Parts: sequence; C-alpha cells; structure tokens
Amino acid sequence: MKIIVDAFGGDNAPLEIIKGALLAKEEYGVDIILTGSQEEIKRTADKNNIDISSIEIKNTTQIITMEDEPNSVLKTKSDSSMAVGMKLLSEGYGDGFVSAGNSGAICVGATLIVKRIKGVKRPGFAPIMPHFKGGCFMLCDGGANIECRPEMLLQYAKMGSAYMEKVMGVSSPKIGLANVGTEEHKGNELQQSTYALLKESNLNFIGNIEGRDIPEGICDVVVCDGFTGNIILKTYEGVAKSIMGEIKSLFSKNLKSKIAAGLVYSDLKRMKKEYDYNEYGGAPIMGCQKPVFKAHGSAKANTIKNAIRLTKDYIESDVIKSISEVF
Amino acid sequence: MKIIVDAFGGDNAPLEIIKGALLAKEEYGVDIILTGSQEEIKRTADKNNIDISSIEIKNTTQIITMEDEPNSVLKTKSDSSMAVGMKLLSEGYGDGFVSAGNSGAICVGATLIVKRIKGVKRPGFAPIMPHFKGGCFMLCDGGANIECRPEMLLQYAKMGSAYMEKVMGVSSPKIGLANVGTEEHKGNELQQSTYALLKESNLNFIGNIEGRDIPEGICDVVVCDGFTGNIILKTYEGVAKSIMGEIKSLFSKNLKSKIAAGLVYSDLKRMKKEYDYNEYGGAPIMGCQKPVFKAHGSAKANTIKNAIRLTKDYIESDVIKSISEVF
Repeated sequence: MKIIVDAFGGDNAPLEIIKGALLAKEEYGVDIILTGSQEEIKRTADKNNIDISSIEIKNTTQIITMEDEPNSVLKTKSDSSMAVGMKLLSEGYGDGFVSAGNSGAICVGATLIVKRIKGVKRPGFAPIMPHFKGGCFMLCDGGANIECRPEMLLQYAKMGSAYMEKVMGVSSPKIGLANVGTEEHKGNELQQSTYALLKESNLNFIGNIEGRDIPEGICDVVVCDGFTGNIILKTYEGVAKSIMGEIKSLFSKNLKSKIAAGLVYSDLKRMKKEYDYNEYGGAPIMGCQKPVFKAHGSAKANTIKNAIRLTKDYIESDVIKSISEVF
Repeated sequence: MKIIVDAFGGDNAPLEIIKGALLAKEEYGVDIILTGSQEEIKRTADKNNIDISSIEIKNTTQIITMEDEPNSVLKTKSDSSMAVGMKLLSEGYGDGFVSAGNSGAICVGATLIVKRIKGVKRPGFAPIMPHFKGGCFMLCDGGANIECRPEMLLQYAKMGSAYMEKVMGVSSPKIGLANVGTEEHKGNELQQSTYALLKESNLNFIGNIEGRDIPEGICDVVVCDGFTGNIILKTYEGVAKSIMGEIKSLFSKNLKSKIAAGLVYSDLKRMKKEYDYNEYGGAPIMGCQKPVFKAHGSAKANTIKNAIRLTKDYIESDVIKSISEVF
C-alpha cells in the first residue's frame, strides 16, 4: 500500500509532515510518496538528522497556502504539492492521499481531480471529532458545501454511516440531524425535508439533535449543511481548547497548583488525550473515488501518523466500494 | 420599581423562583409581583418556611410547559403565569418581566403581548454568555427567528450594541458577524448582504467571526440568524458543561484527587463561576416596548436574583428609549 502525503500542508510543514510520514511507514508498514520541493524536504531532513532515503519524493514547485482560493488547486497552483499529490492518486500512483493544508482547496481537488463516485452530488468534508463520553463522531458536511439540498444531506448520512461502520467499527451507526429542537417540524425547509428523507431511509436515524447533545456522544454521525457544520466544528473546538488552556494555566500557576497537577496527573493526561483532536487525526473527504484525508492544520508528527493510519484503514475497509454500490 | 416574575417558569419552579424573587427584593429594593397559582405559591412558601407577605401575587390558572407550542401564550394558555405576567407588563402594572419558562413562548409573548418597538422587524432572543477571557458577550438572535433577512440582522446589531453599552457598560461594543471565514465574501447570501449593511453602519463592526473566535471574547455582540444562533448557543453551553462536569468528577474520584482539588480550590471556584451561565442570568428579549428577560431554564434562586438585577439595569438604562430613537 502506498500513501501520498502533501509535505507542504499545515502550520508545521515540512518538518512535522516528514517525521509523521516516517513514523507511519515504520509503524504500519506503508510506503510513502511525499510531494513538494525536493530540495527543501532534503534540506529539512538533513538539518534534523532524519534519514529519508526510504521515502519517495515527487518534486513540485508550488505551495497552496491557507490564504489561497480553493480553486487555486486547479488553476494557478496546479504544480503545488497538493494538486500534484491528488493527480498522482487519481492516476493510480498511490492508494490514498493525506494533506494538512487548505481545506477548501482539498475539497475542490478531491471533487475535480480525484473525482466523485458516480451518483454522489457533492463530496463532503467529514471531521472525526472526540465527544465527552470517550468516543468520537463524524460531522458531515463540516464546511465543504455552504448551501446544501436535502438529497445531499441524505447522501452525507449514507456515506457517514458506511464510514463509521467500516472504518471505525461502529455497528449500525446512529445518525442525527443537527437542528434547533428535537421535534420533527423544527428548523428550516432544509431540515424539515431532510428529516423526511432520513426517516424513510434504512439508516439508523435517531431524529433531530441539538448542539448540546453533540458533546454527549448521542450519535455517530451528525448530518448538516456546510455552514452549520463549520459553525459547530469551530465552536466545539474553540470552547474545548479555551477551557483546556485555562486548566493548563491553572495547574502551572505556582508550586501548590503544580503539586495538585501531580496528584491528578494520569487523569489529566487521559482527559487531554480524550479531547485531543490530534488523536483522531482529521477528516476524510466523503464521496470521492479514492481516499482523501485532511489532517488538522496544526498537525504535528503524531497527528500525521494517525491520519496516515486512518487513511490506511479507509483504503482497507473498502468503504468507497460500498458507497459506490449504494449510489 | 416593580418587576413581574413568572413563578412557574423553568425546571425549579416555583420554589427557586420565590426564593430568588425574595433575594432580589431584599438586595436591590425592587417590588415584586409573582404570577401563578396563588394556592401553590403559598403552599410552597409555607412548606419551606418562607415569608412571602411582602410580595404581591397575581393568581393564574395555567402553566406553559417546555412542551407547549410557542403560540399557546396567546391562545390556549392565555391565563398562564407567563401570559398574564406579560399582560400586566403591557398594561403598566410593572416595569419589567422575568421568566425562566419556554423560550419560544416568551418570544411570541414579547412580540405580540408586550409588543414591538415601532420600526423593529422581529424582536430577538439575546442570551448573555460568558467567554473565556473573563467577560461576556451577547448572541443575537439566539433562536427566536429561524429565518432572518439582512435588515433584521442589522437591527440585532444595533439593539445589541445599545444594550451592551447602556446595560453592561461596554464602551463602543464590538460587533461580529458569525460566519464560516473572516473574508468579506464568505457565507451565504444572508451573511454577504448583512456584511455590507454592517460595514456601512456607524456600529463598531469588526467583520466576520468564526466559531473558534467566540469563546476568546473577540467581540461583544455576535450577530446571526436564529438557526445559527441556537446552534452556537447550545454547542457552546454543551461543550463547556461536558468538560466542567468531567473536571468535577476527576476531582472527586478519590482521596488523592480531593487533596488536589483542595490545593487549587480558589482557582477552580473562580473558573466555575466564570463559566457559569447562572452568573449572567439569561437573555433579554431585544426590541419589545418594555423589558422582558428570559432566565436560564435550569435557574435556581441565585440566577433568578441575577436575572431580576439585570432586568432592573435594563429598565434603568433606558436602552429601550435609545433603541426607539434609532429606529
């Protein structure tokens, strides 16, 4: 199995990407192709005494930044580490693609370079997020498609269900529709029509769910349009990060608080790990012909390693075949 | 000053409402009218050795539950503690109204019984929420109007700005538009058109803000449609509640963790207080002719007391007069 990794995506590229790719190669036995400036990859590796002789590099001349327009991946930056990685995937030089770069560009590239599964209206961005009962859930769409139609949301539910079952091992995944109340008539026309479609489907649809239910792990897939999904994703992450930061500063304030931290160290560490987005590694793009995986923008080596593991699981699970058969 | 309090709103009515009203009367010197079943209020007070002789009671025969439709306040439950309270307010028997009951019914009653300020399109539900830099912000609309037009959002911004300045003492309140990115073109048509209106206004508009910015206290008023606002409100509250609950159980696990809790007790207490919704008491309804204030549904005595204090501030600030002059 060969996984293509964008060496120039995210805040900590290329060093942490190189390190993560090597860790994954070692731990999971996957082959890696790094895309990006060969010269810079080699220089970074040398400077940090990292042996990258076992890794293939595909040289590219451009980088897509966080500020670039999503469609730069097709046009002005077609020789970027991201665009070239997706082209290699599409042409069969690898089995999956991982990038911690610009989410919008990844979604556009996944849709138009890697291409959609036949029947899929619009691929969805589907972050895997930790909840506070010791597990995780998928949010789809997390921001790829700001405006959605009910049929798109039904497709996200079907694809999310397949992913959670086949890749994450959840049996009969519970699907919830993000809404402003639990009653069937709640929300706008989009939610009302989607509710009817989900109810008729053979999915394990548990009904409307509210913002407060999500951290309680009430369902395995939260379905919504990309605007709502982006608001949920960022509010959720933001609040968790703010409180965890506050706890950290509380415990490092003085000697007394440091002693306290020592007494509850293992629990604090477990808690931090549970809520750590880096543990889940990121977001698969649901609905394209080959596995594309977005790692968290702030990904360090370990997150990249996890993202590569999840991409390996994504490939091995044959979830794309299942989705193709459903649509 | 006389404040009308719905004795049968929220999870802990009527006992905690009665206690809160008495605390407020004592602490702030306001007169209180409680609405609800006189018999049950008296029985509850007697049973708990509470002297309510100083409080006026307006007897009503119905209660609006959390399950009732919003417009029950106008139709099937026009003799409820909530409907009667709003009628008393509208007829001038009191200066403000507080209820911890059904939010939808409060918004309908505020709009159609207390009535709108001339020029206001739709009153907004505007929860005051704690952020993680030691202050608070207003979210408007937090769920009263699921579908909004750009002019409504501009009005929420103007009313929110007036409230935060006059009631909360914030000079030149910063207004942020909830969106999926900071760039001007982000979001749907609603956000794009609202952005243009806010930019042209004389408000202190800081631009689009993302979910992750909100807990950082980046602005004083977060403007959005009621669907988005409800999602933000409940996700925000849910994540904060889940993590704080986890911290509580971490510290009460065993002797060692209890000792640790003792060492950081004052900081933990401060942190809990900072993130405690009960400290802020709830949400004013923005845009009606007299102050209507929604206390948190889980309000206990102290929250009700705080809600009455904020209603007193709302009355004294003359913010309604300022809003009337603007519209």
